[in-house]
Amino acid sequence: MRVVVLRYGHRVDRDKRISTHVGLVARAFGAEGMYIYGERDPSLVRSLAHVNRTWGGSFWVSWIDDYAAEIENWKQGGGKLVHLTMYGQDIQSVIGQIRAEESVMVFVGSSKVPRDVYRLADYNVAVGHQPHSEVAALAVFLDRLFEGQELMKRFNGALLTILPSKDGKIVIKAQGKESV
Amino acid sequence: MRVVVLRYGHRVDRDKRISTHVGLVARAFGAEGMYIYGERDPSLVRSLAHVNRTWGGSFWVSWIDDYAAEIENWKQGGGKLVHLTMYGQDIQSVIGQIRAEESVMVFVGSSKVPRDVYRLADYNVAVGHQPHSEVAALAVFLDRLFEGQELMKRFNGALLTILPSKDGKIVIKAQGKESV
Repeated sequence: MRVVVLRYGHRVDRDKRISTHVGLVARAFGAEGMYIYGERDPSLVRSLAHVNRTWGGSFWVSWIDDYAAEIENWKQGGGKLVHLTMYGQDIQSVIGQIRAEESVMVFVGSSKVPRDVYRLADYNVAVGHQPHSEVAALAVFLDRLFEGQELMKRFNGALLTILPSKDGKIVIKAQGKESV
Repeated sequence: MRVVVLRYGHRVDRDKRISTHVGLVARAFGAEGMYIYGERDPSLVRSLAHVNRTWGGSFWVSWIDDYAAEIENWKQGGGKLVHLTMYGQDIQSVIGQIRAEESVMVFVGSSKVPRDVYRLADYNVAVGHQPHSEVAALAVFLDRLFEGQELMKRFNGALLTILPSKDGKIVIKAQGKESV
């Protein structure tokens, strides 16, 4: 299954860290890349590129100027749009159906999301109906979509790889092993 | 099961939004309150109190000056410490055991976490071994701990309640119903 994320409404001053977390979660939980609609922010791209270099994989970031056109384009290629919103349907009632789709674009808002997104969406999905965090909503959505398999994903070309540990840090470097 | 969160290392300038998201996730995903170790930040407390007033429940926030003493105190009362870290054991291998505990304090770091926390922890738990977000790690941890039941939690005294919707916003106010 192909999954991409569309981060809507990035503001450099306000959203730098949250958008970075959205991108890191998208990468770590199995999305192939992230479109960003909003203010250009080279430092955000650099942060995510740096993570690729250290931890592997080929997660991409792409700035877009017309989110509606990007969505229409995605849908014309047979993809579906999932909009994460506390106002949507319960995740538990639709996740099975979404899992059967071939490709999914996950729309993650920041500030107010325009009304047309609710209509463009094939699924408006709520990870609970309490206010919390788009970072959390994306993580739980992807964790349930991939049924936990995403946490076992391998990232090619990693410089560093972590081995699970009960009480310390075990990091393998590409040319040997080091415990820190 | 009792769950509290300990947010470690809050810095007013850098962490305001991330720590707010940690608090909102803790509340929405079933924790009863959050200890914060770091710089005092009245605006963070106000944000979370405001959410309680609008969306209900009695989630609390408490600033602490000595995180190790707070942890020791918790453990002397029979509670366990779960430290979320990408270096820990795979969540899938320990979540069943943690679910059998009576009370759990979830330690969520921001900047570098001191070495002693790894030793104080009864469980060092990794939500994947890739860098992502403490907000995401907390959400996925609690979602798996409570097996999705936390999303059905009711919050007493809510002014607003959302009804699930396929394509709009349905909000019930305490004195009537309004669709926006």
